[in-house]
Amino acid sequence: MSGWVKIVGLGPGAESMITPEVTAALDQATDVVGYVPYVERVAPREGLTRHGSDNREEIRRAEAALRMAHEGRRVVVVSSGDPGVFAMASAVFEALEAGDAAWRALDIQVLPGISAMLAASARAGAPLGHDFCCINLSDNLKPWALIEKRLRLAAEADFAMAFYNPRSKSRPVGFERTLDVLREACEPERVIIFARAVSTPNESIRVTTLGEATPDMADMRTLVIVGSRQTRLIERSGAPLVYTPRSAS
Amino acid sequence: MSGWVKIVGLGPGAESMITPEVTAALDQATDVVGYVPYVERVAPREGLTRHGSDNREEIRRAEAALRMAHEGRRVVVVSSGDPGVFAMASAVFEALEAGDAAWRALDIQVLPGISAMLAASARAGAPLGHDFCCINLSDNLKPWALIEKRLRLAAEADFAMAFYNPRSKSRPVGFERTLDVLREACEPERVIIFARAVSTPNESIRVTTLGEATPDMADMRTLVIVGSRQTRLIERSGAPLVYTPRSAS
Repeated sequence: MSGWVKIVGLGPGAESMITPEVTAALDQATDVVGYVPYVERVAPREGLTRHGSDNREEIRRAEAALRMAHEGRRVVVVSSGDPGVFAMASAVFEALEAGDAAWRALDIQVLPGISAMLAASARAGAPLGHDFCCINLSDNLKPWALIEKRLRLAAEADFAMAFYNPRSKSRPVGFERTLDVLREACEPERVIIFARAVSTPNESIRVTTLGEATPDMADMRTLVIVGSRQTRLIERSGAPLVYTPRSAS
Repeated sequence: MSGWVKIVGLGPGAESMITPEVTAALDQATDVVGYVPYVERVAPREGLTRHGSDNREEIRRAEAALRMAHEGRRVVVVSSGDPGVFAMASAVFEALEAGDAAWRALDIQVLPGISAMLAASARAGAPLGHDFCCINLSDNLKPWALIEKRLRLAAEADFAMAFYNPRSKSRPVGFERTLDVLREACEPERVIIFARAVSTPNESIRVTTLGEATPDMADMRTLVIVGSRQTRLIERSGAPLVYTPRSAS
């Protein structure tokens, strides 16, 4: 039996957003590796070992996955959303580059998933319908000054922006600073969307403006989208639709 | 019978990347609307009318979809990849905003898909594993000067970059200019990936550098990814893996 690693995306939460190729990989796996709440999204079955670990354990988890595949096991590394967007794919490749040279001969594939930003955008309308950027607001792995520089340049470029990891208990002030930077660079009417736990029973979508936004509207389960200068609302009964037109001047 | 519109993403090409919720929407539809080659990806069946149109017909197609739903039909608007990224969702909302006020009461949903950029990134490794931006290189709906400004600011921000619509017969020079701008702003060793027809029988992935890249490496079916300064190659037998580490300085 020859082992492999498939680094897969489980999508934002709903089963109906998991692609058939990811489901097939999970059906063939002997081992599933990932952050505890994501591993728990995979149903237990005979012949499958689920290895849940803490979210600060990414490199150790990646090494374990590569080692098991090298021993002949069929290992699925799970992320929520897409594995290539601030998730496990880069961690596995960091471990691969630094690790046992024999691991490079392994069959390693990345299977994309519905990313949180695309799921959030779909629920709100189409706020990412024109040029946009995607920034991880956590300063655990990069200096805050770099985040702030990127925010200012993104505003100058008039990108719509999708923010991952806006706020956590251990980083209570970063998102407040983010809002301050954006308020300096953008008009107060700029649209901002707080999309929490999209496609789960706890989903909430809140559409407001930079002028009205407060830091407590975001937590670690929130994907934040800031519109460009062109982003528009369509009012109707219920929540407005938010979209960015295809054209710009 | 009450009508609805679902604006769905068919993913980059492979059936195995179409989400179950999109498949279910297609199973319930009375009408499928879209660009001819995308409509042809939906199998014909009794009770389903397929309306293929030219790719310059987006607004007329969107109006037709809304009109049919208002008449009680169940209409699926198809895009390849994700419908919210340079695709039909924004076109439908433009038509909705400008059209018959009664259309605003319609049940309209966007169902996300695996976008071309995420599929291309997965095939190459994880080049979008850190902060990145996504730019449509077509100047049909925006001035070239704005594209160039965004390219320069994206390079200054050290975003990885995903480019849609890099080159077509009617726009032969834009991508050459794009490469010129990037060569001024980035070092010649910067990684660039040409991912064509990902997940189809014609798939090709080419990894090179800005210094070696030529305009003819891209066409309308190519998704181009330019790495950040941090993007790395892992050499192994066969194509190298390309990834951007999670950390930056």
